[in-house]
Amino acid sequence: VDSARATGYHRGVTAPLLCASTLSFHALPGLPRFGAGDDLATAILESCGRAGLVLAASDVVIVTSKVLSRIENRFADLGRVTASARAHELADEVASDPRLVELVLSESTELSRKKPGALVVRHRIGIVSANASIDASNVLPPRDAAPGSGPWVLLLPRDPDASARALREALGQRAGVRPAVLITDSLGRPFRLGTVGTCIGLAGFPALFDQRGRSDLTGMTLKHTITAPADQLAAAADLIAGQADEGRPVIIARGLEFEPSDTGAAALVRPPGEDLYR
Amino acid sequence: VDSARATGYHRGVTAPLLCASTLSFHALPGLPRFGAGDDLATAILESCGRAGLVLAASDVVIVTSKVLSRIENRFADLGRVTASARAHELADEVASDPRLVELVLSESTELSRKKPGALVVRHRIGIVSANASIDASNVLPPRDAAPGSGPWVLLLPRDPDASARALREALGQRAGVRPAVLITDSLGRPFRLGTVGTCIGLAGFPALFDQRGRSDLTGMTLKHTITAPADQLAAAADLIAGQADEGRPVIIARGLEFEPSDTGAAALVRPPGEDLYR
Repeated sequence: VDSARATGYHRGVTAPLLCASTLSFHALPGLPRFGAGDDLATAILESCGRAGLVLAASDVVIVTSKVLSRIENRFADLGRVTASARAHELADEVASDPRLVELVLSESTELSRKKPGALVVRHRIGIVSANASIDASNVLPPRDAAPGSGPWVLLLPRDPDASARALREALGQRAGVRPAVLITDSLGRPFRLGTVGTCIGLAGFPALFDQRGRSDLTGMTLKHTITAPADQLAAAADLIAGQADEGRPVIIARGLEFEPSDTGAAALVRPPGEDLYR
Repeated sequence: VDSARATGYHRGVTAPLLCASTLSFHALPGLPRFGAGDDLATAILESCGRAGLVLAASDVVIVTSKVLSRIENRFADLGRVTASARAHELADEVASDPRLVELVLSESTELSRKKPGALVVRHRIGIVSANASIDASNVLPPRDAAPGSGPWVLLLPRDPDASARALREALGQRAGVRPAVLITDSLGRPFRLGTVGTCIGLAGFPALFDQRGRSDLTGMTLKHTITAPADQLAAAADLIAGQADEGRPVIIARGLEFEPSDTGAAALVRPPGEDLYR
């Protein structure tokens, strides 16, 4: 990140961040199975009440994208998707379902890589992910699904930064404080095995923390230190949220001190033109 | 990760992992500035004592690599490095210090990319990082540094998995329980801005958690879900440890339930031949 100043980092998208000596992540209990149009803010506050947890402005409410996708009715019925010639061709190539490939293409701006079973693409929102992060493995049908419909898949929220801002405002109206809101997805990575929770939507929390210009212990100025606290929170929350169920879709992170920042998760996406790995 | 079974993932390198509804990270207070040969296990246990924290076998002791590098005397005096012709050539190309480039080359097995101020290389231990993760920005000289020596830089521990195993054994001998040990470094990433804490050494904790074969809520078998819990822990710990000082080099993570696993952090490195991003 040495060339940060020249290539898109700027102080505007980062903010100071402090952490207490203890940082804790609390899974909210007893949340319902969400469906289209549900009131997430109210459900979160009711669950906080059951857990004896009073939301503070310095909390970060971390929500898995799957919940927002369901609430925003981002279901797609593969049985009703017509695959294009190009989708058929790509599906043959990677041994995938042409109807799924059709949706992947419609959700993405660029095809990055092909691998067995998946296309690695740049999603409309900027993230690079397998199959445009369309969830096909663990999708409960929508509540109004007709008999015989499906199989159902779930697309990412249309605009996760907007979803985060809306949830933050709704919590603020009902709770009287406005905690930060962070939306996560589990993404694979170049170079390393296994998925990690990653921030794809953000409101009120700094995406990046720019420590350039601060002095280090030897009095030298730090030159290369820009961390991604929003991704670091998302990673930890994913440990608790788990993968195989929807039982813990909302995690409260507590112990951070930060200036509310409205940069959004888009600030975490390295501009394609600067990406050394394309 | 669809082709996981064919390409190096196997159940042997993963283990089940459960998380309580609360996961917490505690920075150990009052640790000294470490130097060559110091007894880290005793320092950790003394700090736990001051904090009223009794180590448990299910704790994960997370240590920044910088501390182990200092204890293992991995200092290098740039003033005494002679740069090769190739180092001079590369240093010219990326506007770096030829002596630093010389060390980067000696620490790495492969040059991946060049960018202003840094070489992105595959380090001997398998990770891909800028300047072989050599720390040049925040290095206090070794205690026995001669006047006029330096500038000093700090190389990664020689074998971080071995360092983790040794610390785990030392803690076990002194404390009577063997918590897991995880060693972190802050790494930049393709596609995304900002560094995140990453696991580069590991003992007694599963690097990967393979959920393939578990049923999801609809009764379908999960096919694509292998998470990287060791990296997720490392990311969260990095939030607390910070960057600009050495004040919080050891973090205790508490709330996980796992089978001790001796796969090491090397299991997190995607084999180069399978890397779609090379």
